Amino acid sequence: MVKIATIGGGSSYTPELMEGFIKRYDELPVKEIWLVDIEEGREKLEIVGAMAQRMWDASPYDVKVHMTLDREEALKDADFVTTQFRVGLLNARIKDERIPFSYGILGQETNGPGGMFKAFRTVPIILDIVEDMKRLCPNAWLINFANPSGMVTEAVLRYGKWDKVIGLCNVPVMAKMTEHIMLDVPQEDLIYKFAGVNHFHWHRVADKHGNDVTPQIIDKLYEEDNGLPKNIHGVPFYKEQLLQMNMIPCGYHQYYYRSEEMLAHGIEEFETVGTRGQQVKALEEELFDLYKDPELNSKPKQLEERGGAYYSDAACETIVSIYANKNTEIVVSTRNDGAVPDLPDDCAVEVTAYLGGQGARNVAFGPLPTAEKGWLQVMKAMELLTIEAAVMGDYATALQAFTINPLVPSGATAKRVMDELFIAHKNHLPQFSDTIARLEKEGITIKDDIARELSV
Amino acid sequence: MVKIATIGGGSSYTPELMEGFIKRYDELPVKEIWLVDIEEGREKLEIVGAMAQRMWDASPYDVKVHMTLDREEALKDADFVTTQFRVGLLNARIKDERIPFSYGILGQETNGPGGMFKAFRTVPIILDIVEDMKRLCPNAWLINFANPSGMVTEAVLRYGKWDKVIGLCNVPVMAKMTEHIMLDVPQEDLIYKFAGVNHFHWHRVADKHGNDVTPQIIDKLYEEDNGLPKNIHGVPFYKEQLLQMNMIPCGYHQYYYRSEEMLAHGIEEFETVGTRGQQVKALEEELFDLYKDPELNSKPKQLEERGGAYYSDAACETIVSIYANKNTEIVVSTRNDGAVPDLPDDCAVEVTAYLGGQGARNVAFGPLPTAEKGWLQVMKAMELLTIEAAVMGDYATALQAFTINPLVPSGATAKRVMDELFIAHKNHLPQFSDTIARLEKEGITIKDDIARELSV
Amino acid sequence: MVKIATIGGGSSYTPELMEGFIKRYDELPVKEIWLVDIEEGREKLEIVGAMAQRMWDASPYDVKVHMTLDREEALKDADFVTTQFRVGLLNARIKDERIPFSYGILGQETNGPGGMFKAFRTVPIILDIVEDMKRLCPNAWLINFANPSGMVTEAVLRYGKWDKVIGLCNVPVMAKMTEHIMLDVPQEDLIYKFAGVNHFHWHRVADKHGNDVTPQIIDKLYEEDNGLPKNIHGVPFYKEQLLQMNMIPCGYHQYYYRSEEMLAHGIEEFETVGTRGQQVKALEEELFDLYKDPELNSKPKQLEERGGAYYSDAACETIVSIYANKNTEIVVSTRNDGAVPDLPDDCAVEVTAYLGGQGARNVAFGPLPTAEKGWLQVMKAMELLTIEAAVMGDYATALQAFTINPLVPSGATAKRVMDELFIAHKNHLPQFSDTIARLEKEGITIKDDIARELSV
Amino acid sequence: MVKIATIGGGSSYTPELMEGFIKRYDELPVKEIWLVDIEEGREKLEIVGAMAQRMWDASPYDVKVHMTLDREEALKDADFVTTQFRVGLLNARIKDERIPFSYGILGQETNGPGGMFKAFRTVPIILDIVEDMKRLCPNAWLINFANPSGMVTEAVLRYGKWDKVIGLCNVPVMAKMTEHIMLDVPQEDLIYKFAGVNHFHWHRVADKHGNDVTPQIIDKLYEEDNGLPKNIHGVPFYKEQLLQMNMIPCGYHQYYYRSEEMLAHGIEEFETVGTRGQQVKALEEELFDLYKDPELNSKPKQLEERGGAYYSDAACETIVSIYANKNTEIVVSTRNDGAVPDLPDDCAVEVTAYLGGQGARNVAFGPLPTAEKGWLQVMKAMELLTIEAAVMGDYATALQAFTINPLVPSGATAKRVMDELFIAHKNHLPQFSDTIARLEKEGITIKDDIARELSV
Repeated sequence: MVKIATIGGGSSYTPELMEGFIKRYDELPVKEIWLVDIEEGREKLEIVGAMAQRMWDASPYDVKVHMTLDREEALKDADFVTTQFRVGLLNARIKDERIPFSYGILGQETNGPGGMFKAFRTVPIILDIVEDMKRLCPNAWLINFANPSGMVTEAVLRYGKWDKVIGLCNVPVMAKMTEHIMLDVPQEDLIYKFAGVNHFHWHRVADKHGNDVTPQIIDKLYEEDNGLPKNIHGVPFYKEQLLQMNMIPCGYHQYYYRSEEMLAHGIEEFETVGTRGQQVKALEEELFDLYKDPELNSKPKQLEERGGAYYSDAACETIVSIYANKNTEIVVSTRNDGAVPDLPDDCAVEVTAYLGGQGARNVAFGPLPTAEKGWLQVMKAMELLTIEAAVMGDYATALQAFTINPLVPSGATAKRVMDELFIAHKNHLPQFSDTIARLEKEGITIKDDIARELSV
Repeated sequence: MVKIATIGGGSSYTPELMEGFIKRYDELPVKEIWLVDIEEGREKLEIVGAMAQRMWDASPYDVKVHMTLDREEALKDADFVTTQFRVGLLNARIKDERIPFSYGILGQETNGPGGMFKAFRTVPIILDIVEDMKRLCPNAWLINFANPSGMVTEAVLRYGKWDKVIGLCNVPVMAKMTEHIMLDVPQEDLIYKFAGVNHFHWHRVADKHGNDVTPQIIDKLYEEDNGLPKNIHGVPFYKEQLLQMNMIPCGYHQYYYRSEEMLAHGIEEFETVGTRGQQVKALEEELFDLYKDPELNSKPKQLEERGGAYYSDAACETIVSIYANKNTEIVVSTRNDGAVPDLPDDCAVEVTAYLGGQGARNVAFGPLPTAEKGWLQVMKAMELLTIEAAVMGDYATALQAFTINPLVPSGATAKRVMDELFIAHKNHLPQFSDTIARLEKEGITIKDDIARELSV
Repeated sequence: MVKIATIGGGSSYTPELMEGFIKRYDELPVKEIWLVDIEEGREKLEIVGAMAQRMWDASPYDVKVHMTLDREEALKDADFVTTQFRVGLLNARIKDERIPFSYGILGQETNGPGGMFKAFRTVPIILDIVEDMKRLCPNAWLINFANPSGMVTEAVLRYGKWDKVIGLCNVPVMAKMTEHIMLDVPQEDLIYKFAGVNHFHWHRVADKHGNDVTPQIIDKLYEEDNGLPKNIHGVPFYKEQLLQMNMIPCGYHQYYYRSEEMLAHGIEEFETVGTRGQQVKALEEELFDLYKDPELNSKPKQLEERGGAYYSDAACETIVSIYANKNTEIVVSTRNDGAVPDLPDDCAVEVTAYLGGQGARNVAFGPLPTAEKGWLQVMKAMELLTIEAAVMGDYATALQAFTINPLVPSGATAKRVMDELFIAHKNHLPQFSDTIARLEKEGITIKDDIARELSV
Repeated sequence: MVKIATIGGGSSYTPELMEGFIKRYDELPVKEIWLVDIEEGREKLEIVGAMAQRMWDASPYDVKVHMTLDREEALKDADFVTTQFRVGLLNARIKDERIPFSYGILGQETNGPGGMFKAFRTVPIILDIVEDMKRLCPNAWLINFANPSGMVTEAVLRYGKWDKVIGLCNVPVMAKMTEHIMLDVPQEDLIYKFAGVNHFHWHRVADKHGNDVTPQIIDKLYEEDNGLPKNIHGVPFYKEQLLQMNMIPCGYHQYYYRSEEMLAHGIEEFETVGTRGQQVKALEEELFDLYKDPELNSKPKQLEERGGAYYSDAACETIVSIYANKNTEIVVSTRNDGAVPDLPDDCAVEVTAYLGGQGARNVAFGPLPTAEKGWLQVMKAMELLTIEAAVMGDYATALQAFTINPLVPSGATAKRVMDELFIAHKNHLPQFSDTIARLEKEGITIKDDIARELSV
């Protein structure tokens, strides 16, 4: 019987996770679920925990949902640990976005400045969790969906020296769910190979006879709906470019292949409806209102608009596949081991893999085309620098990471944005306390209107 | 409906292949099978072809077995081309073995001097076949089991520029069939990862929970039967060595890890019961006598003793998996693409793969331990040199290949053996005609008794 | 006795080259110098050629300066071929700069959009020259200083299959000439190691006892003049960043590490004094007026302001070192061969090398720090894509190159700039004629005011 | 003023070293020389120390030669530490040779079984010395000529984490001194590039115009004397093989390219005049008799027959080049850093380098041909395993190293030889004490006659 511990249990995603476990109970006989959160998340934890218990109670299965602020108790003898926590909650993400935008720079919460500060906040915590796991549940698997998921996975492998980790992402699922419809064939008749890093991967598709149908899908993308995830504004890729690489990028590649438009769109949202973080916050509040309803015992429709749909599905399927040694094909973040030969063997990549008792068995992708090789290598450098800065608390390394990030135009404004983000997140960046003290002494402050708005 | 062309159709293995297709007819609706051979193999072709037709006639399926000496006719519009031909027939193998042994050097028909000369004879023919396929069946898959299977696959990829090729080997199947019995668990509860090159690979095993059970299997190997294929004399590996690498070598590694004993055993056979080639020849004659029986319509038991059992099973399963996009896990020779990061991306390796419509999806193995990395790199150098010599007909490259081959003690005797093998195979090495003319002029001849015995 | 052929002989640099040869006559006994140019450059060729002959006549040496429009005559039996031609003359550079700036994008003539179009124009010509050399002077060395010098060298190696090529740059010389003064030691007491690609390299410095003095030089850079070449506007690097990498970037790194300021500065010049190309054009006109003076027989002081000082010195020293097998230490563009292990062995890099009879003997630099490794890999991808586009005339590859270039913000504006540059350079891009016809059909035109100004 | 500490100061080579320093006094102002040895070497130390002092006294320079058994005193504030010690003295080498030969296996004292056991004895001591140096002379350079010189250098870099190390070898010097005579040109007119590992390297040669003259030298090698070092029996390489690789191997490659003959020759010496170690021992005794002569104050002629001529010359030249930042071209063992791209960046290689204040600046060699790449990779694996076994005291790793060594035919005899060598060297292998105790318990003993002869 399986014990699952979910760090960040008060997340709005938890009901989706419960649904996934209920659906798969025959394959994964869950006994206990432990939802862990911190003091600041206690209220949400209680709402979502009660909702989770109601979902199980409405199912034929006898599963106890525990709510706790004591992480050690939850981790003790766990079989699977899932991590979906958000250091500083959604407000931190809103700072990650609004401070850069206030200077005309993308905030981007996964691989942009926002994502880098998210990594600075998240990496020390995930490494703490890994240390706990070494003591309390040394045989457990860590299934991470805390963003930036790729960097978190890389940190767990490189600095945590913990191999039993899988990083998840819902983006590849979306491609698989939409592209077969474009070609009017059953999903299982398409053969997929993904390669890259989290939120920065490409894929190739073949039909069941092995014929490359990537060009046909590219054609279809320009005929009809382009199959991109809902939470990314639909700026089309240049078709020539896709045909040249003969691969299909992920939605986040728009930030790199159409920087100008993505920046313009981001600024427009920043100035009008609010950044994605703000939109998500409103959605979350709505969701938690729903969750409070003592009658509600199934995942509400509105959760899908949250973005990240199918995330939990991917997570549950991963857990089941490992538990039951099912060899299901899933795209995950995992140690490279040669699957993407343009990156070092020992770094984290996001690739097609068969998930089983031993974790991910990566499908070797082979060398990438010239342009994508270059892109991937520079993104991995950015990731490694960000993680190193997060672990060491080193300002200069953070500056190097900011400078090399293709989403950041280097120079004084970018440095100012970085400095203000350090100030804004001072409570969640203890490793940078010297840096933050220096910046404060130098008089770095956040623009008045933004500071007021963000209550910093 | 599927057309299959089998080059070297007169082989004694053909009935096993037929059995495999009959067993899998539901998944692979074969329509026509074309057995191709050359004039020298006409008699065998007729015997085995008739036998093959009888097998299908005894089945519920209406399949026509064509026999032909016209390769082009057979290849035309084929869906799968299997290659199991043997240039110079078994007599060539016997020369490959007996000439080296007559000088106290291993003949070894796959990666030793014998295997190298087999490559010299086979590579030009397989490249011819590939050129025919480009014209006559450009969408077909080439499924090779002609030895040396890894070098043949490498030649097809590198010089033939033909990607749709899978090289097969029965050795990994044997490991999978025996090791679970040692651990007393169902076969499907063990998780395998193989890496290396043909007849020179290692594997690691985990249980279904992902725990490494390689050390337990190593322990078992020393308790009971060591699970090695029947056609390799059972000299045990040193247990310390296996535990150090924490991998299980293949049977052929005995030639490298216990050279002394394998040479002694080979020489003993050479002097008494005959080399393996001679033993096989006797077995084959027996088999063909059985095949002649017009009542016989199923694979005779004796075929298993031939060595290479399960070969055809692997072949049929590979074909079905590609045809039906089944994603079956099979160990095959295929382009590396990073799966074995210690070798170049573009060379052939033998690894665990999922076979489907697009061919092999290699499982990334990750870096090998120091010793095995060194072994593999030197073996790949030997393979590449052998193939280059085969393609270019270059004597000095052949000498480099012989010198680097770990089974050959370099020096005058080895060179003499190589020279005599050139003379012995002169009819099947047109690319080396200048070399052979020079050697004849220099008076290189085969020792009288061996020459008589081999009728050279 | 040595024959030298200089393609683009009408360049304003030619007198500096002459001065270099005169100074080194004892080591390099020049017999004939052939200045080659094209019809459009005839007038300049005649002015500078006459000036060059006067310089030799004023020397103790009997050297004949030939002027010709017939490249073949000049190449015949040449010992050294130097290339300093500029396809489309300075006007082309001005287009390369002003069209991007008219859209708020950097033109940058070496690695930015301007440099990419310079590569599109230059690569086909250099490959033509190489083909001529194969016929007319197969033992000659090609010493290139046509920009983008690194990409031109790469093209000669990769597509020209010509190994005897050295690409030159004056930037490293400047560092060596200034930094020892900062430390108040003789130049020969500092030990240098450079690595990177042309206009994108870093260096480390040790004192004569082997102690790393890079941090001291970095300190000095922030005390006094920062030692950057005159033709780059002096925006300081962030000191933390330099200390983190413990290397000294080249001046062109300002475009990457301080993009914002370099863009602002470029736009300011664009709107006021004119782009660098325009400034150079004015300087050149002044220079040619001086050269016309029949009394002038030595290099005028004003040439130094041209930018590119010491260029010819590096070129002459390279030629002498090869000719006399001197093993002089020079920083050059050459085949990597492992010196920068973060890039492929077979690509062009710019590294410290010992120049002798065999060309460059590269000093192995070893692995770069994480950030610089990422930067270098993405820049090499940009270079390879640019060259491939130049050779193939492929629009989509050009778009990939533009998109990955860190100096170009991707999106519609960048694509528009690229399209307009194709139109602007239509006379010098025959390989892109289909693309240009399509763009014209699509109605792509240059903004009226810019078109008028550039007389396109 | 320079302090030099020589570990193993009682070596017969010391007078050659003194001669080298005296010759170069103008460039290297030596103040003190400390000859260190251990109790067992005290007598030799006194003889050779007195001789060394006489040599200096006969020179115009005032240099004090200190003799000591206290290593710490010698290392204190040293500028250069040279290591030429021999753990177990020449008797250990004789065991390394005679025990393998007694089983028909090569002893080979550098890369064969003998050299591996020499590494087992030497690596722990050199790592001790490095630890002392970190405390006592952290700015000193370690110049090693203790064999196996490449493995010792690798151990210092990898396990000692000490970068200021140069490993020396006299073999490349010999090639340079003889080959120019074959071509009848001055030595300085040939351009050399070496690559490989110690006692396993190849070189290419160009004339001063950059033309490859390797094939001409190969031709010459077969006309006249083949230029191999005196201490290797002259079995010719196969000329075809050399032309195929277009490189010239070092003398030790005979063991790999002509194993059969080298083994036969070794066994003949073993059975008649004694192994090389025995011959050297006789020579050394003769040398020490000469050294005792209080009149002798210059290096005696007989030292040259010792083998290893020019060793000390290379050592002195290396020291001077580092001290005076001379940039002399020398072939040394050093960290790869990409110079040999077929091996990892961080391992030790033997390459052409320019020696200066910062140590070795390796000349990038570029990729090796297929065969030599394979050979080098397998040899590096052997070296790494040997060093790992030496550091860890691990029997299984030692067995892996023995098994992969191309000079050792794997199997029971080789294992027996290894086991006996452990017994024979028990006093000098404390890290293997458990192994040795086990072997003794298992009754492993040395053959009676050999044991008697070696007084084990």
